[in-house]
Amino acid sequence: MGANADGEPVDTEEAIMQATYRALCKHGYANLTMQAIADEFDKTKGVLHYHYDTKEALLVAFLEYLLSAFEQNIAVEGRGDPDERLEALIDTLLFGPPERGTFDHWELTTAMLEVRTEAPHNDEFRRQLSRNYERVEATVIAIVEDGIERGVFRDVDPEQVATLLLASINGSRIYQVTLERDDVAEITRASLRAILREWLYRSDSTDDTH
Amino acid sequence: MGANADGEPVDTEEAIMQATYRALCKHGYANLTMQAIADEFDKTKGVLHYHYDTKEALLVAFLEYLLSAFEQNIAVEGRGDPDERLEALIDTLLFGPPERGTFDHWELTTAMLEVRTEAPHNDEFRRQLSRNYERVEATVIAIVEDGIERGVFRDVDPEQVATLLLASINGSRIYQVTLERDDVAEITRASLRAILREWLYRSDSTDDTH
Repeated sequence: MGANADGEPVDTEEAIMQATYRALCKHGYANLTMQAIADEFDKTKGVLHYHYDTKEALLVAFLEYLLSAFEQNIAVEGRGDPDERLEALIDTLLFGPPERGTFDHWELTTAMLEVRTEAPHNDEFRRQLSRNYERVEATVIAIVEDGIERGVFRDVDPEQVATLLLASINGSRIYQVTLERDDVAEITRASLRAILREWLYRSDSTDDTH
Repeated sequence: MGANADGEPVDTEEAIMQATYRALCKHGYANLTMQAIADEFDKTKGVLHYHYDTKEALLVAFLEYLLSAFEQNIAVEGRGDPDERLEALIDTLLFGPPERGTFDHWELTTAMLEVRTEAPHNDEFRRQLSRNYERVEATVIAIVEDGIERGVFRDVDPEQVATLLLASINGSRIYQVTLERDDVAEITRASLRAILREWLYRSDSTDDTH
């Protein structure tokens, strides 16, 4: 994460990203001014402008920082059976990693939602979000293909399964931070598990061509 | 929609809501100032302030306006078999109503995403979004319960099915407007259909207690 033994950021850009994250969590995207970021930063506003010409340039770097935090948070062990790997990935995408605490999962979800909201107006944001989506999608597709290959999953369209998983997890996390109820992610997990176990996984691998 | 025969808004508050919608589509939520709204409005900024004390009061009314547009857009015929009604509701939630054109579906999706992003910071927004969620959820649950009752759906947990449908549709619509790819909603529909047909619907209603 680019921090030294005391957890202090080792370089100014990392410190600016951390200050932006704190300012975003505190004030929301609509009030994320350069001044609000500078207030969370132990150097002057001039230093912000020295590193990033414009607020937009800073925010493009910040989205990259958030997505890399997100990808780090969802890194899942590559071992185990396809069903175990798929369920572990769903749990991590929905609820964050079992350990580790650099970023609070729901705070990061809220921050990513706020930055994502700028994407309809910003090509560069859309490009970055698409690359991130495609990396996570490729992970899910690889697990599903492996399950089909090994004869433990039904012969489904891996891209369809990946899209449904990612869309439902994305929608569920966004509901979780924008509705009054706090059970949407939990119910989504139960529903996805039921569908995986009763539809995707083959209860009997001898009832087909195998 | 409170418009006269020429499509002109019949009252000032309706006109302010329409101006806010245009300003939001044009500038995005982060740049949605009272001035930007006034620029889309044929009366003075003073009239905005006369009707809404604060920008927040205006935005609370605006969210109500958006959600009512959304609920109007997804009103689905109450007739037909449960499977037909469920698939029609999914199509409408994902792609908008088959006819009608007051609001463009993807523009409305973007506008709702932008306002939703304020919800983590705003109790009143969360309350309104929750009531809307619960109304749509109740519609899905009623269809699933009807299908189970009639013996054409498997005996699933209707709340789990509703949560998964709404989360995947919400996530899919948000991906559709924030990623570079334009196939996410289409793939989500195909995936939901496969799961409904191969998992939820009973292919043979005699293989159980019936």
